[in-house]
This record gives sequence, structure tokens and C-alpha cells, in this order.
Amino acid sequence: MNPTFSQIKLSHAGALQLLNTAIEKAMTMQQPQCIAIVDEGCNLLAFMRMDGAKVLSEKSAIHKAMTAASSRVPTGNTEEALAAKLAAATGGVVTNLKGGLPIILNGQVVGGIGVGSGTGNQDREVANHALAAFVGAQTFVFD
Amino acid sequence: MNPTFSQIKLSHAGALQLLNTAIEKAMTMQQPQCIAIVDEGCNLLAFMRMDGAKVLSEKSAIHKAMTAASSRVPTGNTEEALAAKLAAATGGVVTNLKGGLPIILNGQVVGGIGVGSGTGNQDREVANHALAAFVGAQTFVFD
Amino acid sequence: MNPTFSQIKLSHAGALQLLNTAIEKAMTMQQPQCIAIVDEGCNLLAFMRMDGAKVLSEKSAIHKAMTAASSRVPTGNTEEALAAKLAAATGGVVTNLKGGLPIILNGQVVGGIGVGSGTGNQDREVANHALAAFVGAQTFVFD
Amino acid sequence: MNPTFSQIKLSHAGALQLLNTAIEKAMTMQQPQCIAIVDEGCNLLAFMRMDGAKVLSEKSAIHKAMTAASSRVPTGNTEEALAAKLAAATGGVVTNLKGGLPIILNGQVVGGIGVGSGTGNQDREVANHALAAFVGAQTFVFD
Repeated sequence: MNPTFSQIKLSHAGALQLLNTAIEKAMTMQQPQCIAIVDEGCNLLAFMRMDGAKVLSEKSAIHKAMTAASSRVPTGNTEEALAAKLAAATGGVVTNLKGGLPIILNGQVVGGIGVGSGTGNQDREVANHALAAFVGAQTFVFD
Repeated sequence: MNPTFSQIKLSHAGALQLLNTAIEKAMTMQQPQCIAIVDEGCNLLAFMRMDGAKVLSEKSAIHKAMTAASSRVPTGNTEEALAAKLAAATGGVVTNLKGGLPIILNGQVVGGIGVGSGTGNQDREVANHALAAFVGAQTFVFD
Repeated sequence: MNPTFSQIKLSHAGALQLLNTAIEKAMTMQQPQCIAIVDEGCNLLAFMRMDGAKVLSEKSAIHKAMTAASSRVPTGNTEEALAAKLAAATGGVVTNLKGGLPIILNGQVVGGIGVGSGTGNQDREVANHALAAFVGAQTFVFD
Repeated sequence: MNPTFSQIKLSHAGALQLLNTAIEKAMTMQQPQCIAIVDEGCNLLAFMRMDGAKVLSEKSAIHKAMTAASSRVPTGNTEEALAAKLAAATGGVVTNLKGGLPIILNGQVVGGIGVGSGTGNQDREVANHALAAFVGAQTFVFD
């Protein structure tokens, strides 16, 4: 086996673009949001708390982004009993709140976007919109 | 868009008044309380643990005040499964215990008051009483 | 030996008086302060962040009060190398910043008062003034 | 005394402008940076980790911004022994690393900007440049 492999990384220009399109969408929806973007290592790349967004959504938005980047699937679909155990085992970092989506380019997870302050459905709508505006990024269909 | 906006802040004189009226009410009810007042940024402004109040209610009273200031609605009305996820994702700061009320002046949230040591209904009665005695503050009706 | 002993406790009325006289003094000095009062168990009794006081002095004011209540002497006089070890070993709770004074009534430590946002000398002047206005409380002389 | 007072708050549009000008400056200097902007309550408003910036500078950039917003002066000028005690007493949040500047508009502190990954002098040069491009913001002169 090879001792190394190549990883696509999201640049700060890419993160800024995701941030800007998420902000625009949230303004159109008239629902201020906290928006967090992390890389594939779950480290924070970009963050914005919009005017009127909940102060305490900073942490949950970041945790949503981290959870999606790590699990590689949207947050909010884990069976409840398992979700509670995962949250406890990770000090609350792994969250099953809706609003976290993995950022997937050419089938490779390059990070996660987490949105919080609205309803769970609003949060993931904003996140999904930002992905839709990002060339090559996978988007998600929710029930 | 404007680079700034204006925000009403609660002064320490205002916080002291809320604290004093909450203490008076709790004494009338003969239910000692922990009482916390935070500003709109969820930072602690004022706190009192009354004689006989529960030592461990310090943290929960502060978290109630923070939750109400951030969410802008009374604590205790969130659906249980969502509340558990929000608590986990924020290290327990976002709480669904009754007894946290937003402090709303002229339609603007300027902070939160959190009360704890009694029953949930007693806690929010004390918080609501303090708001009722504060000129211009919104009060709440509970079932 | 007796299985129990008696402890004088500071009431919330006493804590409120200390808070009020500290606030008055700080206003006279035109130096807004964070003021914390803890009981002999180092648990928070009362707190106030005055208008214009430093947000980040909340934690340090509380830690000063806790340190003084526990050590039973004013903060700020520990030899530097020892102080650094004590701070490290207690997660920063034991602090050698000036501005923490024990509350001593009839020779018994009933708690601590911690003040922060000004210079160390201003901080302990406010704390000492609050003690001077409290009947029976020991005050301190600083160089 | 008045129960409230008025405070200027930095909008997310203002925070985004500071972020963008800081990024531009850092690119011109060819020194990638972590850039954090907090409001006057020390809560995070905006953050960016540029390509090549140090992962572990996330926390220090945020702490620089918080320290400057709370103390209302640039970080890095505190006497060393005092700085060490302040850091310990606040769990490392209050930092004396260079690179944190208060955001002062019309004489009112509305937040702080913290920059980290370069040398201390590079960090504060980027922060100061962002302030210089912000209409009405105070800038700083360093030796």
C-alpha cells in the first residue's frame, strides 16, 4: 500500500463563497443564521453570526458542521437512542440537530457546513442552498 | 448594508432592580431562589443565591437566563427530543427547564432572567414578577 | 472530638450590602468593576458587572473571591513561582491577581470578595471599602 | 440611574468587510492568517482560517479578539507577570500575544479583531489594516 494519498481541500476562497451564498439565502428567507464551515479534519475554516441570529447557536452550528464532515452524511437522521450516546461520548460535538451537511466534491468529502438559529428545516435549507451554488458540490433531498 | 446597528443594553442599575424585585417576590413566596440576569450577549450581569437556595441551581439559573436571552422566548416550551439535542450540542447551556424569561423592552431583547431552586412554576413566577415591576418590560402568560 | 461545629454564614442580605457598597465606591472612583462575593465554600453568592466593566473580568473577579475565601488572606501576595504552580494545579481558579479579600467576621472567614476591571490597586481598594462598610468585618492595610 | 443605555453594535456586513480587507492584506503580505472578529460582548461574529494558516492559531486569534474587545486596548502591551496571571485566571482567554485590536467607532468599543499565524508584528499589521479600511474606525501606531 502507498504511504500517502491525496486529499482535496476546501480553500478559504471556497469557504468564503459558501459563507456568502448562505448569508444571501438566509437574508432572502428573513431568518438570520449562524453559519460554520469546517474542513475534512473538522477544523473551523469560516464562521459568521448574522445580525439577529442566536448567540448560543454559535456552538451548535459549528458542531453540526463538524458532525457532517466526520460522518459524511447530513445531520438529523440518526436513530434517537444512538444519537444520544454519540453526543454523550463526544462531549456534545456529534449532534443530531438538523442543519449540518457534508461538503462533497467529486465524491470526496472536503468538509461540512452547519447552520443554526432557525428551525431545523430552515437551517438545512440554507446549508443546501450554499452547496447548490458551489460548482461540483453534491446537494441533498429531504422529505 | 450598514456596518453597525444600535442596541439597547440593560444597565447595572436595571439589573440590580430586577434582582431586588425577584428577591422580594421569592421571600414573599417563602421559596429561596438563585437569580441570574444576563445581557443580550448572554454574559452575566447580576446574580444572587438567596439563603436556603440550592447551591447547584447557580449554573441552571444562569443557563436559563442565557437560553431565554438567546432564543428570545421563555424556556420550558421546546419539544423534548429537540431540547435534549440542543442541550447536548451546547454543553448544557441551552436548557429547557422552566424559569428563564427574555427581557424585552420596546420589542428589543436586552437580556434574560433565570430563576432556579423552586418548582419550575415557582421559578418562572419569580422571573415574571421581576419583569412586571420593570417599566416597559414585556411579561408572559403561562397556562 | 465533636462530630459537628458551627459556621457563621454570610446571608444574601449581607452579600447584597457588600455588592451595593462596592458599586457605590467604584462609581465614586469612576472605575466600573466586576464584583463577586462567594461564601466560605467558594460558591457564588452575588455578582454584578457594572456598565463599562470588562466582560472578561467576570471570571477573574469570581476567582479572586474564591481564592481569598479559601486561602483566608488577600490575593496578590504569593511568591510568583508558587502562584504559577497553584494556578496551574487548580485550572486557574487560584489566582494571585490583586483584588480578592477574605470576608472575616469575629475572626471567622465567612467568604471572599473579588473585584476586577481596574488596576490591581483599584480593585482591592473597592473590595476593602465594601468590607469597611460592613459592621464587624476585618479590613486590610496595603503598602 | 437609567435602567438601560444605548450601544453601537457591529453588523455582520461590517464584520464581513473587516474579514475581507484583512484577508486581502494577508495575501499581499504572503502570510496566511487566522482572522477573528468578536462583538463587544466577546462573542464570535466572523472567522476565517486562510489557506496555509496555522490550525492552532484558531483559538489564539479568537482570544486576541476577545481580549482586545474586553480591555479596549491593543493586546501585547501588558507587563509580563500580570499578563501571565490574567491568562491563568481566565483559562487562557485573556492573552498578551500581539495581534488583537479593539474596534472603536466614535469612541465606543464595538468589538475586537484578532489575527494569528504570522509574527506578532505581522498579525497586528493585518488587524490594523482592516481597521484603517473601515470608515470611522480608530487605528493604532506601534513602535
